Amino acid sequence: MLTLHRLCIHTMTTKPWPLREAIDGYVRAGVPGITVWRQHLEGVGLDEAAKMLRDSELRVVSLCRGGFFPGVTIAKRQFAIDDNKRAIDEARAIGAPLVVLVCGAVPHMPLAEARNQILHGISSIVDHAAQAQVKLAIEPLHPMYADTRSAVNTMEQANNMLAALQSPWVGITVDVYHVWWDPYLQNEIQRAGKSIFSFHVCDWRDPTRDLLNDRGLMGEGCINVPQIRKWIEDAGFDGPIEVEIFSDEHWAGDQAEYLEKIKVAYLKHS
Amino acid sequence: MLTLHRLCIHTMTTKPWPLREAIDGYVRAGVPGITVWRQHLEGVGLDEAAKMLRDSELRVVSLCRGGFFPGVTIAKRQFAIDDNKRAIDEARAIGAPLVVLVCGAVPHMPLAEARNQILHGISSIVDHAAQAQVKLAIEPLHPMYADTRSAVNTMEQANNMLAALQSPWVGITVDVYHVWWDPYLQNEIQRAGKSIFSFHVCDWRDPTRDLLNDRGLMGEGCINVPQIRKWIEDAGFDGPIEVEIFSDEHWAGDQAEYLEKIKVAYLKHS
Repeated sequence: MLTLHRLCIHTMTTKPWPLREAIDGYVRAGVPGITVWRQHLEGVGLDEAAKMLRDSELRVVSLCRGGFFPGVTIAKRQFAIDDNKRAIDEARAIGAPLVVLVCGAVPHMPLAEARNQILHGISSIVDHAAQAQVKLAIEPLHPMYADTRSAVNTMEQANNMLAALQSPWVGITVDVYHVWWDPYLQNEIQRAGKSIFSFHVCDWRDPTRDLLNDRGLMGEGCINVPQIRKWIEDAGFDGPIEVEIFSDEHWAGDQAEYLEKIKVAYLKHS
Repeated sequence: MLTLHRLCIHTMTTKPWPLREAIDGYVRAGVPGITVWRQHLEGVGLDEAAKMLRDSELRVVSLCRGGFFPGVTIAKRQFAIDDNKRAIDEARAIGAPLVVLVCGAVPHMPLAEARNQILHGISSIVDHAAQAQVKLAIEPLHPMYADTRSAVNTMEQANNMLAALQSPWVGITVDVYHVWWDPYLQNEIQRAGKSIFSFHVCDWRDPTRDLLNDRGLMGEGCINVPQIRKWIEDAGFDGPIEVEIFSDEHWAGDQAEYLEKIKVAYLKHS
């Protein structure tokens, strides 16, 4: 039986709210956890954001997002590495123990080459992460994002990367939206075991009307979230359940009312 | 070096054209092959359509589409089986040696169960296909269609079905749009070998603006079509190259001019 104590909400889920309003809104609604997107740090100032989060006593679950390692030039790849180090520093500053990596892809670059560049990118930042005591999580993205967002499109590929990197600082984020269709999902969750560092939930609307911003609340689509959660928990995960929903429809409404719907959907369908 | 003699166009690619105009347009443009969608047969009458196609001397490559086997009731599944037998009869009538199967999926039905129902559905029509001398091709669909269109989302799953069905009348349609992202694509194409019955091309636009109707002309996106074609030909395929593009943008223009663009894209980027 789920209770609210494992609930975490991404600031992108309530995108219209600046960080201040998100923090206040979550506290008011009794949501204990927050995952902060970097765009919600912009304009606030890192020290101020850190103070706001500390004072709120919200549990900062992770910072979204690092990654985007592949690039057609060495300069672009180095820029990505430097930016990921900054993301790690930001995570440390706001008390987030984890940076989620959307690993990146470049149109026309062979996906295998992109994965090589991703491996190189992560291995270039892992010492920085260890020093900062901030973990990194590879998030496999749905194959429909293989053009520009990530060349890591299955749990198996993420697990293979962990095997290559062999670092306790690198794990996996499982997001049901990206992996629900995968016939090897249960096996690869077992294989990942304790390397599953975080867990994102939402739903796949049928039909889905937009490639990016039509995710559903849990229960609004066809993903069996409780089944996937069970597999993850059988593999040893007992951390926060993070609601990450990109939705033009939900963003257009009142965000405080939306939070209440999220709580109901979380309790009923996660 | 490609020449036009392998070019085939789907009537859905020039969707605004009724069958009569499509046939005339393809003949006028020197396109030798046609794949007929069932919706373009509606209202024409099967005998009349067959006569038009025969008189045109176009090569009828396949009929699209059968499939959609899974259903929540036995009655729905039986309806699908009967409808697929009708599709086979229609293919035979118009001289199409192949029916392409979009296998189907039902929201909330576990994908493994849907695949079982698909296997049962295909095995229920394979004798009918053999009697009609019409082949069947399982087309793996992109994972973004796993909610309502197909529970067969990879070449591996299609190959596994062939292994289970063990019929020379059942093979695979490879459509670059659906499989380009798959890390096991080359291996599974090799495994399929001569069971590859047909080959569909288009491109994945980056960004893609719609889940259904924003496919690109070859060269308008990020798929390495020549690479995939080489793999398929290395596996033994030397049949038609079928241009299947669903595109609100391209449908909105003059279809005769569009045909000329298709020919250029086919020669340059397939």
